[in-house]
Amino acid sequence: MRLLEERILKDGVVKSDGVLKVGSFLNHQMDPKLFEAMALQWKQDFADAPINKVLTIEASGISLAIMAAREIGVPAVFAKKSQSINIDGEVYSTQIQSFTHRRSYDVIVEKNVLDSNDHVLIIDDFMANGWAVDGLLDICDQAGATVEGVGIAIEKGFQPGGEKLRLLGVRLDSLAIIESMDPVTGEIVFRH
Amino acid sequence: MRLLEERILKDGVVKSDGVLKVGSFLNHQMDPKLFEAMALQWKQDFADAPINKVLTIEASGISLAIMAAREIGVPAVFAKKSQSINIDGEVYSTQIQSFTHRRSYDVIVEKNVLDSNDHVLIIDDFMANGWAVDGLLDICDQAGATVEGVGIAIEKGFQPGGEKLRLLGVRLDSLAIIESMDPVTGEIVFRH
Repeated sequence: MRLLEERILKDGVVKSDGVLKVGSFLNHQMDPKLFEAMALQWKQDFADAPINKVLTIEASGISLAIMAAREIGVPAVFAKKSQSINIDGEVYSTQIQSFTHRRSYDVIVEKNVLDSNDHVLIIDDFMANGWAVDGLLDICDQAGATVEGVGIAIEKGFQPGGEKLRLLGVRLDSLAIIESMDPVTGEIVFRH
Repeated sequence: MRLLEERILKDGVVKSDGVLKVGSFLNHQMDPKLFEAMALQWKQDFADAPINKVLTIEASGISLAIMAAREIGVPAVFAKKSQSINIDGEVYSTQIQSFTHRRSYDVIVEKNVLDSNDHVLIIDDFMANGWAVDGLLDICDQAGATVEGVGIAIEKGFQPGGEKLRLLGVRLDSLAIIESMDPVTGEIVFRH
C-alpha cells in the first residue's frame, strides 16, 4: 500500500537491527486519516469474505482493529494481556511471546464475545515472528471460529512470521512488507 | 448521553460492589457505531476548544481515543504501560494506580509526540478514582501542554474521581454518570 510505504519512508526510523520505530504515526501517536485508508484497503481486500468480527491483541493493534471494524461494519474484540477482577472464569486463553518485550504473557478472550458462529479478521500492527497472530489463531481455534484472514500493517519480511502463515494457507494481507532495512544508512526496502 | 445509557442498561452487568461489566460493547468487544456516536458527542461538546491532540492510556481507552481523534481531525497518542526496547530515553513518565488490577504501574509518553504547543483532549473509558486521568494530567504538565478537557465514557459518580477533577476546574465531559448500582437487583441509576 503506497500511502503506508511512503509514510514509513518519511517518518519511520530504523533503530538497531530488526527494530523499526513508527511511533510518530502508527503505534504511539496514531494518524486517523492513515488508519482510515488502511482500514478501507483491508475492507476491499477481504470484500468476498463473510467477516462478522475483527480480533486483535492489546495494545497497539486496538486502534487499527476498531477502524477496520468501523469500515467493515462489525464489532471488534481485543485479547487482553492479563486477568483482571473484571473478567469471569469463562475465557479462552493462550500464551504469547513478545519480540519487543522479550518475555511471554498470557492473553485471554471471554467466551461470550467469540464463538463458532464467528468469521474473524485478525488485525495487528506488526508481524515479525508471528507469535501474536499464532496466539490469536489458537484462541479462534478454541472458540471454533473461522479465521477469514489476517491483516497486518507492517510485515518484517526478513523474519519468518509471514512466510509461516502463508505456508499454513492463511490468507495474509500485509499492507507493507519490509524486505530489508539498514540501521546505518536508514534505508528501507519494500517487497512488491 | 441517552444512547450510551440505554446500552449500559441493556448490556451492562453489575458484578460486585463497584464493578460494572461492559465488555460486550465497550472495553473488550467494541461497537464502532456506538463509538462513532460517542466521538461525535465529544466533538460537539468541545467544539469551542482548540484541540489538536487526543491523549489516552492503554489499553481500553485507545479505541475511544482514535475514534474521537478521527471525528475531531487530529492525531491520538496513547500512554504506554511499560518501557520496551522500542522506546528511547526521551520520555515523560508517571505512576498510575489501577482500580481494576489493584496495583500501580509506570506509564510513558515519548517527548516527540507531546509538547507545549499541544492542546489536549484526554479520553478514557472509565473514571472511578480518577488515577489514570491524574497520571495523564501529570504527563501533560511535564510536557507543558494545555489540557482542554477530559472526555470519559462512563463515570462512576459514587467514586471521587469526577468530583475531584471538577473541583480542580478541569472541564470534564462524562457521557454517562452512574449515580448508583445494585449488584443484587442489577439496577443502575444515572445522574442527570
